Amino acid sequence: MTRIAVCAPATAITRDHAEAAEALVADEFPQHSIHFHDQCFLGAGHFAGTDIERLEALVELANDPQYDAVWFAKGGYGSNRIAEAAVARMNEAARAKTYVGFSDMGYLLAAFYRHDIGQPVHGSMPVSARSETGREAVRRVLRWFSGDGSGLEPSLDGQTPAVAFNLITLAMIIGTPLMPKLDGHVVMVEEVSEHLYSVDRLFFHIANALPRIAGLRLGSVTAVPENDREFGQEAEDIAKFWCARAGIPYLGRAQIGHTADNRIVPFGLASPPTGD
Amino acid sequence: MTRIAVCAPATAITRDHAEAAEALVADEFPQHSIHFHDQCFLGAGHFAGTDIERLEALVELANDPQYDAVWFAKGGYGSNRIAEAAVARMNEAARAKTYVGFSDMGYLLAAFYRHDIGQPVHGSMPVSARSETGREAVRRVLRWFSGDGSGLEPSLDGQTPAVAFNLITLAMIIGTPLMPKLDGHVVMVEEVSEHLYSVDRLFFHIANALPRIAGLRLGSVTAVPENDREFGQEAEDIAKFWCARAGIPYLGRAQIGHTADNRIVPFGLASPPTGD
Repeated sequence: MTRIAVCAPATAITRDHAEAAEALVADEFPQHSIHFHDQCFLGAGHFAGTDIERLEALVELANDPQYDAVWFAKGGYGSNRIAEAAVARMNEAARAKTYVGFSDMGYLLAAFYRHDIGQPVHGSMPVSARSETGREAVRRVLRWFSGDGSGLEPSLDGQTPAVAFNLITLAMIIGTPLMPKLDGHVVMVEEVSEHLYSVDRLFFHIANALPRIAGLRLGSVTAVPENDREFGQEAEDIAKFWCARAGIPYLGRAQIGHTADNRIVPFGLASPPTGD
Repeated sequence: MTRIAVCAPATAITRDHAEAAEALVADEFPQHSIHFHDQCFLGAGHFAGTDIERLEALVELANDPQYDAVWFAKGGYGSNRIAEAAVARMNEAARAKTYVGFSDMGYLLAAFYRHDIGQPVHGSMPVSARSETGREAVRRVLRWFSGDGSGLEPSLDGQTPAVAFNLITLAMIIGTPLMPKLDGHVVMVEEVSEHLYSVDRLFFHIANALPRIAGLRLGSVTAVPENDREFGQEAEDIAKFWCARAGIPYLGRAQIGHTADNRIVPFGLASPPTGD
């Protein structure tokens, strides 16, 4: 069994979201337990509570030995504001835990990976449990907690360490104290709701920081807004262009992104939990 | 007189834009001349011609001793793709020229400033000559070419070197070979059409790269899209927050931005041209 605790380092979820996830766990994964911290439901402008409130909830759950995993409730924006402070306060229990989330949660996954704090994992989040398609993405993580690796990103070969990031999140992490060393890694990136010119600009920005990686894989690039003109290249053309320009091997697509097909990418060379 | 040549390193303008700027120069600034390179009107997807076409036009005008200044036609997106290659091909004539533009042109201004190529200048562009309010911004640059400093950003004191950038452009430049050393500079930033959470995220990204600057000034932050929730802080609060967190003196507002009030910021400690 996996004892899961949930907090929201960026934006809030509602009680309905939590209840949907709780019901899914109770009905289909009774071997696991899931606990939602009240901080998940706070509001402070854009965020699920103030920086201090979000930080305290994260540190409390991470440092509590009664939980095996911290599952981030939802992305959005805001975990970057507390990531450095969180790392500084992690104890031994925190260093033995699994952390699952994606999108804006990439700031935390990056910082934890850099500082060797537990097992960071790119994966879908409890906020998705209310929709039929999202529920399957949530099940994928719960199955992985049970030792079932069927939801892993298919290209993971157990030989080459991998990470997965939202593209703009990775671009913002580069050059900050959150940035892990990614030499020799397969780096997977996905994007949502960005113009293609913005995707191009982000690849320009990250190209200088990643030349020693093992290669890049492109996840889904979805909900691209309409622009007043066609960009003239598709997202994969853009990825190939910048990889070629930077000397980075382009390895093809990855099944990650802001879709129900979002697969699991444990950072590094992780094996799934041994299960129950 | 200033012999001005215009090219479009990012996106295209129309012949109507060029004619409006030509008429303004002929009617009100007969001491100057203005020449639009045909590349300004090309199209290749998002861009004013292919990377090669935009690069060749820029290098041709910059290296031509018959021009005193290169005025960039319009921003948009794309000058980052040719900036490094342009720098590598600049001759002595290019190193004696003035370069004026802003927004996406910041990639070129940054690269030229880093490599001591001529005088980079943040200022409005010919694309604005068709509207009544934009025309005044264009006149401001033409007056500055005549030695009239009335359009300079008011806080420039001639003592502290300054630069001005679009916020996301600066964020994308950081960590690339285009980035100049900005230690001891006043850095002015402005933004347009970005959510406030994105402004916050960009300040997070740049905060680590700028701690030794003399201070930061915030220009206008305009056309902020509506979000599904209020961010909870105004743009100036965000700038102050990140400056405080990074130990950067916050110096107040600057009159730069995507508005008709956009003032001129010569990079470094520039004096205006001696005029005619």
